[in-house]
Amino acid sequence: MAMDTGLIFHPYMRPGRTARQTFEWGVNSSIACDKIGFTSMLISEHASQIWENIPAPELIFAAAALQTKQIKFAPMAHILPHHHPTKLAMTVGWLSQILEGRYFLGIGAGAYPLATYMHGIKVPADGSGTGFLNEMVRESLFIMEKIWKREPFFYEGKFWDAGFPEEAPAETEEDEQHKLANYSPWNGAFPEIAVTGFSANSPSMRLAGERNFKPISIYSGLDALKRHWEIYSEAAIKAGHTPDRSRHAVSQTVFVADTDKEAKKLVMEGPIGYCFNRYLIPIWRRFGMMDGFAKDAGIDPNKADLEFLVDNVFIVGSPDTVVDKLNTLFHRCGGWGTLQVESHDYYDDPSAWFHSLELIAKEVAPRISLPKG
Amino acid sequence: MAMDTGLIFHPYMRPGRTARQTFEWGVNSSIACDKIGFTSMLISEHASQIWENIPAPELIFAAAALQTKQIKFAPMAHILPHHHPTKLAMTVGWLSQILEGRYFLGIGAGAYPLATYMHGIKVPADGSGTGFLNEMVRESLFIMEKIWKREPFFYEGKFWDAGFPEEAPAETEEDEQHKLANYSPWNGAFPEIAVTGFSANSPSMRLAGERNFKPISIYSGLDALKRHWEIYSEAAIKAGHTPDRSRHAVSQTVFVADTDKEAKKLVMEGPIGYCFNRYLIPIWRRFGMMDGFAKDAGIDPNKADLEFLVDNVFIVGSPDTVVDKLNTLFHRCGGWGTLQVESHDYYDDPSAWFHSLELIAKEVAPRISLPKG
Repeated sequence: MAMDTGLIFHPYMRPGRTARQTFEWGVNSSIACDKIGFTSMLISEHASQIWENIPAPELIFAAAALQTKQIKFAPMAHILPHHHPTKLAMTVGWLSQILEGRYFLGIGAGAYPLATYMHGIKVPADGSGTGFLNEMVRESLFIMEKIWKREPFFYEGKFWDAGFPEEAPAETEEDEQHKLANYSPWNGAFPEIAVTGFSANSPSMRLAGERNFKPISIYSGLDALKRHWEIYSEAAIKAGHTPDRSRHAVSQTVFVADTDKEAKKLVMEGPIGYCFNRYLIPIWRRFGMMDGFAKDAGIDPNKADLEFLVDNVFIVGSPDTVVDKLNTLFHRCGGWGTLQVESHDYYDDPSAWFHSLELIAKEVAPRISLPKG
Repeated sequence: MAMDTGLIFHPYMRPGRTARQTFEWGVNSSIACDKIGFTSMLISEHASQIWENIPAPELIFAAAALQTKQIKFAPMAHILPHHHPTKLAMTVGWLSQILEGRYFLGIGAGAYPLATYMHGIKVPADGSGTGFLNEMVRESLFIMEKIWKREPFFYEGKFWDAGFPEEAPAETEEDEQHKLANYSPWNGAFPEIAVTGFSANSPSMRLAGERNFKPISIYSGLDALKRHWEIYSEAAIKAGHTPDRSRHAVSQTVFVADTDKEAKKLVMEGPIGYCFNRYLIPIWRRFGMMDGFAKDAGIDPNKADLEFLVDNVFIVGSPDTVVDKLNTLFHRCGGWGTLQVESHDYYDDPSAWFHSLELIAKEVAPRISLPKG
């Protein structure tokens, strides 16, 4: 089976963009990706970052629901400690019904301490002692699954209370005022749940394996990517699940143009380069996220600049070059099912961006396959 | 100034409608109302009722945002005890920005004990002892306003904790990774806040007067409507605000056709009659909500059936008849600013419904005005 393509939309909009522009860009991107043949669009949920300025990804999914046909949507991720689980379970279930199943659910504990603080949870700035956030995730998921089951319960949890009532009997034969609405996900099944991992020894990958969740790796170098699959598949096998590489998605910065030269120039001088210089390179340096890439290339992380990333980390070039780069990566790490292309701010002129997405879906992806066996 | 027209969308969809049908009907109704000249569309938020099957009204506003031009949207109401206030404040603020100000915020404490129970709050079935729900509303609003102000705070409340951080200094001149996103409502102002009242001595109307909120009366008879305005305006004056009848909205069941006979037949035999027989008449009887109407007409509440409601309570008829009925009501109670038409399930064939809405906006409303002085 050939590799699938998806979009991941953080969305890296430059400061000064209005909420309406960001929203419009999200809706238009979903419609374009649906037409081009992308199989999924993931949108993240952030409270604090000006460059990652979507607090409620479900609003974009709703706006795209009636204007798209085959693409699947997923929040990546709903930050479970920030929501009442009942409320979130109902919104997720209802949206999954509206999308007639074109939905899966990314969950997370929240990686940004400021966003966590806004929701009333103080965590140390160094990120230590955040184990209770994972406890919150587990309790939230436990409650959401009970809400979706629609069986009577009342649960007094450590972080939240929640319940589901018994349906009252009808007062008369015709009476329907006692009937309960059904906000379980499409077909009454639980949605597929996904988690992202970044660091080499990602605890999210272990959780994904244990619980049979869909694993999504934020690309942070070859070693980490290989470790992700090892951790995931070991945990999956131990828990009695069968790890399947076609469920593994990997997010990457990818840009394809008709020639290598044009592709590199468009990345260096366009919205992707601007975003990396102003936002992602500073944040990657701050959190040591450059180390894996520098290690792969054998250089000092402080010397890793935009051009280094374009040449060595991103997947940039003509269709043939990008096929080669991906095949090399697949050969080294074993491959994955979906290439989740990192979206950037081409709001002012989307033509080169949509051309790149089209080349990725039509000229690149069909030529990349998981190795047999 | 002539009366404004709005829609209130609960949405009274018959059991068996899919989530997608309900959602589509909401989006299509918003587009139709926007074109016809309705000034507002309110959508309620319900967790428990099969006939009122929207758990997240913001999803419909988002889907309508780019397809409408002048209509304002409001949740009526977001049930504040069911949301983390930070999360809700950010979703509300972001949506208000996306709609470029075409937004106001209905708030409520939750009228359905089963919905409250689902969100982990046990209230007695008789509705007593629910004062703490109003306390939750006040605390939630207090936190939301602080989030919208974007000034540093940390608040440990009775029901929720929340905070807003100080923006960190830049690490380098170009660095933008420290900058905080802005999810305050449009133009940084607080949105107009609205509350609904139903019972004659509605505490919501008192709160609206005290806090200068927009008052919305769910029509439950002439006496209650008059009391609503008295309670509201007394509280407003006492708090130093100027009560303004043009801000008062009243929800009603209204249906207009070319003749009186056709209008009555379409209501009795169509979706409105079906909904009242199966859902609203049983629920109104159960909660004593028929009493005000029966008192106005001098009959036994148990004898109040669909035909009684069509003839005596709803506003049904030709444009001339409906103008007369509304002028009579305006004469008796002093009038109001916006007629909030109760929406019904015309999903299968919307033609008669959209014709009615068009007659209300174009043939009726321009002939109704607030009495001078």
